[in-house]
Amino acid sequence: MTSLTLMKEPVAPAPSPRPLLRRYDEVRARTRSLVAPLSPEDCALQSMPDASPAKWHVGHTTWFFETFVVAPNVPGYRAFDPAFRVLFNSYYHAVGERHPRPDRGMLSRPSLDVVLAYRTHVDDAMRECCERARDDPALASLIELGLAHEEQHQELILTDVLHLFSRNPLYPAYDATRKPAQHDASELAWIRYRAGLATIGHEGHGFAFDNETPRHRVWIEPFTLASRPVSNAEFLAFVEDGGYRRAELWLSLGFDAASAQGWSAPLYWIREGDRWREFTLQGLVDLDPHVPVTHISFFEADAYARWAGARLPTEFEWEAVASRSDTRGRDEPIREGWRARTPSTISHGEVWEWTSSSYAPYPGFHPAEGAIGEYNGKFMCNQYVLRGGSQITPPEHARITYRNFFPPDARWQWSGVRLARDAR
Amino acid sequence: MTSLTLMKEPVAPAPSPRPLLRRYDEVRARTRSLVAPLSPEDCALQSMPDASPAKWHVGHTTWFFETFVVAPNVPGYRAFDPAFRVLFNSYYHAVGERHPRPDRGMLSRPSLDVVLAYRTHVDDAMRECCERARDDPALASLIELGLAHEEQHQELILTDVLHLFSRNPLYPAYDATRKPAQHDASELAWIRYRAGLATIGHEGHGFAFDNETPRHRVWIEPFTLASRPVSNAEFLAFVEDGGYRRAELWLSLGFDAASAQGWSAPLYWIREGDRWREFTLQGLVDLDPHVPVTHISFFEADAYARWAGARLPTEFEWEAVASRSDTRGRDEPIREGWRARTPSTISHGEVWEWTSSSYAPYPGFHPAEGAIGEYNGKFMCNQYVLRGGSQITPPEHARITYRNFFPPDARWQWSGVRLARDAR
Amino acid sequence: MTSLTLMKEPVAPAPSPRPLLRRYDEVRARTRSLVAPLSPEDCALQSMPDASPAKWHVGHTTWFFETFVVAPNVPGYRAFDPAFRVLFNSYYHAVGERHPRPDRGMLSRPSLDVVLAYRTHVDDAMRECCERARDDPALASLIELGLAHEEQHQELILTDVLHLFSRNPLYPAYDATRKPAQHDASELAWIRYRAGLATIGHEGHGFAFDNETPRHRVWIEPFTLASRPVSNAEFLAFVEDGGYRRAELWLSLGFDAASAQGWSAPLYWIREGDRWREFTLQGLVDLDPHVPVTHISFFEADAYARWAGARLPTEFEWEAVASRSDTRGRDEPIREGWRARTPSTISHGEVWEWTSSSYAPYPGFHPAEGAIGEYNGKFMCNQYVLRGGSQITPPEHARITYRNFFPPDARWQWSGVRLARDAR
Amino acid sequence: MTSLTLMKEPVAPAPSPRPLLRRYDEVRARTRSLVAPLSPEDCALQSMPDASPAKWHVGHTTWFFETFVVAPNVPGYRAFDPAFRVLFNSYYHAVGERHPRPDRGMLSRPSLDVVLAYRTHVDDAMRECCERARDDPALASLIELGLAHEEQHQELILTDVLHLFSRNPLYPAYDATRKPAQHDASELAWIRYRAGLATIGHEGHGFAFDNETPRHRVWIEPFTLASRPVSNAEFLAFVEDGGYRRAELWLSLGFDAASAQGWSAPLYWIREGDRWREFTLQGLVDLDPHVPVTHISFFEADAYARWAGARLPTEFEWEAVASRSDTRGRDEPIREGWRARTPSTISHGEVWEWTSSSYAPYPGFHPAEGAIGEYNGKFMCNQYVLRGGSQITPPEHARITYRNFFPPDARWQWSGVRLARDAR
Repeated sequence: MTSLTLMKEPVAPAPSPRPLLRRYDEVRARTRSLVAPLSPEDCALQSMPDASPAKWHVGHTTWFFETFVVAPNVPGYRAFDPAFRVLFNSYYHAVGERHPRPDRGMLSRPSLDVVLAYRTHVDDAMRECCERARDDPALASLIELGLAHEEQHQELILTDVLHLFSRNPLYPAYDATRKPAQHDASELAWIRYRAGLATIGHEGHGFAFDNETPRHRVWIEPFTLASRPVSNAEFLAFVEDGGYRRAELWLSLGFDAASAQGWSAPLYWIREGDRWREFTLQGLVDLDPHVPVTHISFFEADAYARWAGARLPTEFEWEAVASRSDTRGRDEPIREGWRARTPSTISHGEVWEWTSSSYAPYPGFHPAEGAIGEYNGKFMCNQYVLRGGSQITPPEHARITYRNFFPPDARWQWSGVRLARDAR
Repeated sequence: MTSLTLMKEPVAPAPSPRPLLRRYDEVRARTRSLVAPLSPEDCALQSMPDASPAKWHVGHTTWFFETFVVAPNVPGYRAFDPAFRVLFNSYYHAVGERHPRPDRGMLSRPSLDVVLAYRTHVDDAMRECCERARDDPALASLIELGLAHEEQHQELILTDVLHLFSRNPLYPAYDATRKPAQHDASELAWIRYRAGLATIGHEGHGFAFDNETPRHRVWIEPFTLASRPVSNAEFLAFVEDGGYRRAELWLSLGFDAASAQGWSAPLYWIREGDRWREFTLQGLVDLDPHVPVTHISFFEADAYARWAGARLPTEFEWEAVASRSDTRGRDEPIREGWRARTPSTISHGEVWEWTSSSYAPYPGFHPAEGAIGEYNGKFMCNQYVLRGGSQITPPEHARITYRNFFPPDARWQWSGVRLARDAR
Repeated sequence: MTSLTLMKEPVAPAPSPRPLLRRYDEVRARTRSLVAPLSPEDCALQSMPDASPAKWHVGHTTWFFETFVVAPNVPGYRAFDPAFRVLFNSYYHAVGERHPRPDRGMLSRPSLDVVLAYRTHVDDAMRECCERARDDPALASLIELGLAHEEQHQELILTDVLHLFSRNPLYPAYDATRKPAQHDASELAWIRYRAGLATIGHEGHGFAFDNETPRHRVWIEPFTLASRPVSNAEFLAFVEDGGYRRAELWLSLGFDAASAQGWSAPLYWIREGDRWREFTLQGLVDLDPHVPVTHISFFEADAYARWAGARLPTEFEWEAVASRSDTRGRDEPIREGWRARTPSTISHGEVWEWTSSSYAPYPGFHPAEGAIGEYNGKFMCNQYVLRGGSQITPPEHARITYRNFFPPDARWQWSGVRLARDAR
Repeated sequence: MTSLTLMKEPVAPAPSPRPLLRRYDEVRARTRSLVAPLSPEDCALQSMPDASPAKWHVGHTTWFFETFVVAPNVPGYRAFDPAFRVLFNSYYHAVGERHPRPDRGMLSRPSLDVVLAYRTHVDDAMRECCERARDDPALASLIELGLAHEEQHQELILTDVLHLFSRNPLYPAYDATRKPAQHDASELAWIRYRAGLATIGHEGHGFAFDNETPRHRVWIEPFTLASRPVSNAEFLAFVEDGGYRRAELWLSLGFDAASAQGWSAPLYWIREGDRWREFTLQGLVDLDPHVPVTHISFFEADAYARWAGARLPTEFEWEAVASRSDTRGRDEPIREGWRARTPSTISHGEVWEWTSSSYAPYPGFHPAEGAIGEYNGKFMCNQYVLRGGSQITPPEHARITYRNFFPPDARWQWSGVRLARDAR
């Protein structure tokens, strides 16, 4: 039997060989570098309640370390500013009051400079914690969580700043010299898998969020999966076929959302006369037909799939394929047939892929104790799982078992679609 | 009555032995009897966009037969009133325009009398169709669908009229002599099930909705299930423990909904000084501690379960238990242990039971062709499955494979909760 | 110089020569006759928060007499139903709780029959009050207020039922045999008035609302006034000239309202291909070019006037002209010139005429003591005064000093426009 | 200082003796100095749709000169950035598209630096225009309008930044060293005026907005006016008497607004335990009992007046008093009695004073031709006039005939109240 996904190399992150402090410094430096091209004003504005100002992301990721790592572990630690406890709390009821999310764009003060100084203040205290974590696995694990958390916000800094810039008629570029998305002009192929009992969820070594656990079994019926995500050119055919106006292609809520919000193409597509352009981190550019379509909602992904005679994969189908289990027992789903080609790998995916799976707890799921337990579990409702990772996902952040999730009408993420079909 | 979990006999409705016409007449007569206690005004009002006037239900169920059965099958049929094609279309885009749902309460005309005359007009034409269906299984199946559809609306007539009356400070009784819900004072017991591969979905004989198919396999991890739904007395303990104000017990969206809408108890509970009362079809009565709690949302069911150290069952756990498979092969989940007691039966259940399962298509699901295909599939988003049936569900309507579904904040149905737990 | 304002004959209704009881019976009977063509369902529905069900009007006008006349004056009076004290209270905080206005359409009970029985119950008690009022001017005055109040609601019954019927795609006729509005094909003429000091407000004998008092002086600069209201044909020219899309013609708030609500013609005009129709109490009829335009908001009236190179008159200009008193002293504004024609009279006006005057208290205004003081004064904000009366205003209800008032976006009244211009 | 009511000298600004260019430079420099204490972030944020970012004010006032003065008068002028034509257009339909007002806070670019450079660019071109205006009165008048316009926005910069800072839990001070409002502990006195015919509106020399014209006559009935505005201490008595919860004191719309928005004190008052504090441009300070109450809506001013047994003055009463006409002819309102005291002056008033007058055109009012005509007239609906001027009104900007106006629920301006009463 041959393998399921086609990855040449294991993708799940092995336990980091390098010292924790070095990883800490790298991750923290990356956040600074992400806001470097931005002005203080760029960092202060909030373009919608779902998005946050970059400055808030910078402060909140620091708050996370201060609140959950430094404060309980560094005796005599003096808070940089006690008011920040409320100001940069995102949604942790157990930590106390929170500044309201839609009001994050009201905070011209503290200035970006002050927030960066806050960052340095906490980094200093974190040095000691990283040292101590060598002998304290629970502490090390908490710091790993903080770093994974910061990596999530790194991606959000870019999604949120792109959204902000998209509301500015000047269409500013975040980085005009930025390299465009990877170009994959390969023909779409369908790969077929047999039914079987898959093992889903995180293995237990290396970092994972609580929502990826516990590892458990899921029965999967036979299916086929596309060899790559849907491209802009393919999605354009749907647009030009009147896809946004044909109710029969849509979920009922989806058609309502599309009508109410006037959707007629992916979020950042702009028609200028006869040609299509797209607003990107490089600014306004011609639509590249060969890259994966991005910035579509679950609703649009689902409608496109129906139009194409297909459906979205479940997150279990996706993970079973991605985890390539050619040596497992007879209950595992099996790829039947083979194609001499390399589909997109996970960790360097260009786009998050919507699945048909509602975001729900795995059997036996228990959130962490205390405030950290609010990280994932309480959001398991009316959201859909995305798998893979995108061109702006930090390196090392993605995992085969990783479960990203957003409401079905969310469009401002790097979200696209890979098609699946039932096979009997 | 046989038991829910352990029924010796198949419960899925066998092909009805009695002639279709007789069943048609019975179902249609039941609708008339349901609106008999209501005045024309009671039948015309709409208390919220999710609810419909009773008159609209009476017209729409007739429209369904006229549009999908009579019009295509009775040559020369003359519509009672061509305007009704739009007026009583619920959500079928393929049939054409629809009168907007929130405006159903704007229709003082046609009067109830006229709508009942419309009913008679279509019934006359349906007689011929029922006869012809003896030799036309597809037609028979369509008529069965129409009857199941009407039974759904029979339940909605009662849920909607109760909601309407609840907004009237006079608290009118739908039927002051109505027998209260069944009283079940048994102590709650937990029954344990082993892991296994369950077969889920409708078998193929007897009527079922398309969303119950196709029958397929689902792996279920070990779990325990409560012997009966949560009672009013049990839920009251949650209320009095401050359950509605403790964010840590709730899904994030749930706590938002509870706060925004000021929830502090189930929908129809009213505190009068020291005692609790409940508004019911009998009018305002003392809260009966022994009957199952009803009129709670998915959010409240979920919060209650968390407070009780439990969780909601999945719809697969529920169906696996309900379909009683203690003699099946080794992959089937197994009841370990036994209690000499009779849990609520399905077909005479007192309450719909929220499950943790998002309403989604089964693997291989295909909606019916044509307009009828809009019946179920397009609603498979942001809704949660309820299983069982309630005291107002029409007899013969419930099935073990039946999937009821509502958004997680819906409270005006006869919805309650049965607890589950992981077992390792 | 002859004076403008003051009429040869008193126009304010003189003390009614006929017995109060007879007037009481006539007014009350008229309300019954207005709802006679309506079904119980027609009477129960509420088409928008600003409109009320006919049944509510019937109950509330009775409540007014019960609360303000019978209860304080008839010893031993037993309320028909104590719950009605809340149910039929419109907005009198001083009387206690009120059923919320937008929920008036939730009351299928009490039924219309019961509300009519309530009416009879209170009428019985009122007989005694009317007798006693012969010797009690304060009581007589209170009863007169109740009757004027009921006449206001008589007009609202028709405006509200027309609005309800307009939301029904069947377009029911309130009275298919109803005589259409008066036809006035006269050419529009402009009449000029000199500056002067006008005396405005009610004289002091005969009934008037408190908002018409006290009588006081207002200086009026020279102006001209149109001889009749704007006709449908004239307004149609504005529509066809793109009037609804030309921002420069509108008040800023008006253009916002027109855009947000999609106005493109008066409320009940419907374009069917090449012809215009209008929904009226007679049902859907061809637009009559010669009758006054009705069902336009203050915003539309104002925009039309600007388009026509004119403006709205102030309420003082209107009253000064209407009270036409060409023999008074030197400070009175003077009509210069004369036309041998009869402008529309007030008491038989076809349409309420928007003025440019914000609804405000007259100098020295004091609301009545007690709950009755809530009748008018507290609404003196963000409303505009209409003068005259309409084809559905009860006979004897209109007065030259009468101040009707509605918010500037209200369209469901019989509201039209008469043009004015500055004259120097 | 001379007195408000009794000024011996004309107060309407005489034609400025100094060269226009000098005034231009002074006004423009003042705008720069107002934003000097602010960071780029402070200048970019928008705290509500009614307020604008300081950066937008800086850009828009420049746009005004560029659009209405430079572009039509400087041949060969090259726009600084053509995109600014839309970006900084406030509400002039005639100039073309406008960036939506609620989205002014979405513009992180252009940065403050760029907007200041735009300012310099236009100032350069304006030099030539100011020179040329010596011989071109129409041009001079247009420039004067632009300067008055800029002074209005100078006041808005401060009101808007205070509102923004008030939404920041850190309560930043705009200028911690700023001198507090003038302290006036004088006892409140009532001054009586006789009836008479007042002349209202701008005289014709010196600058005025079009809404202050034409000068015309208004009859005023006898009244009394308070000698100074209501103080914080006086308003506090209303608060502590339950004034915000007593429906009988409020206009109906006002009580609705107060309830819906949870008003319980003036906008920036904060109760900390037993003491009251106020958020000001100096930061959070103890409430000063002796200064005029500010940041109250028309609704609060009106409710306070009713509680105090008084009413708001009309704008005509206010102007008649302020223009001091005790030596005029017999028709002028006359101050009866005299007090040897100095009421607040107009041009250095501490607070704008709400009047009871709805903002409406004066008889004979005609807006200016072209886009400039949109300046005032189109806002004459559902707004109320304020008279006087506040501690943040630019010097020389206030006039006795000046008509400020805001909707009745606006609270973020320096708005207070002076009481009046009818006198017979």
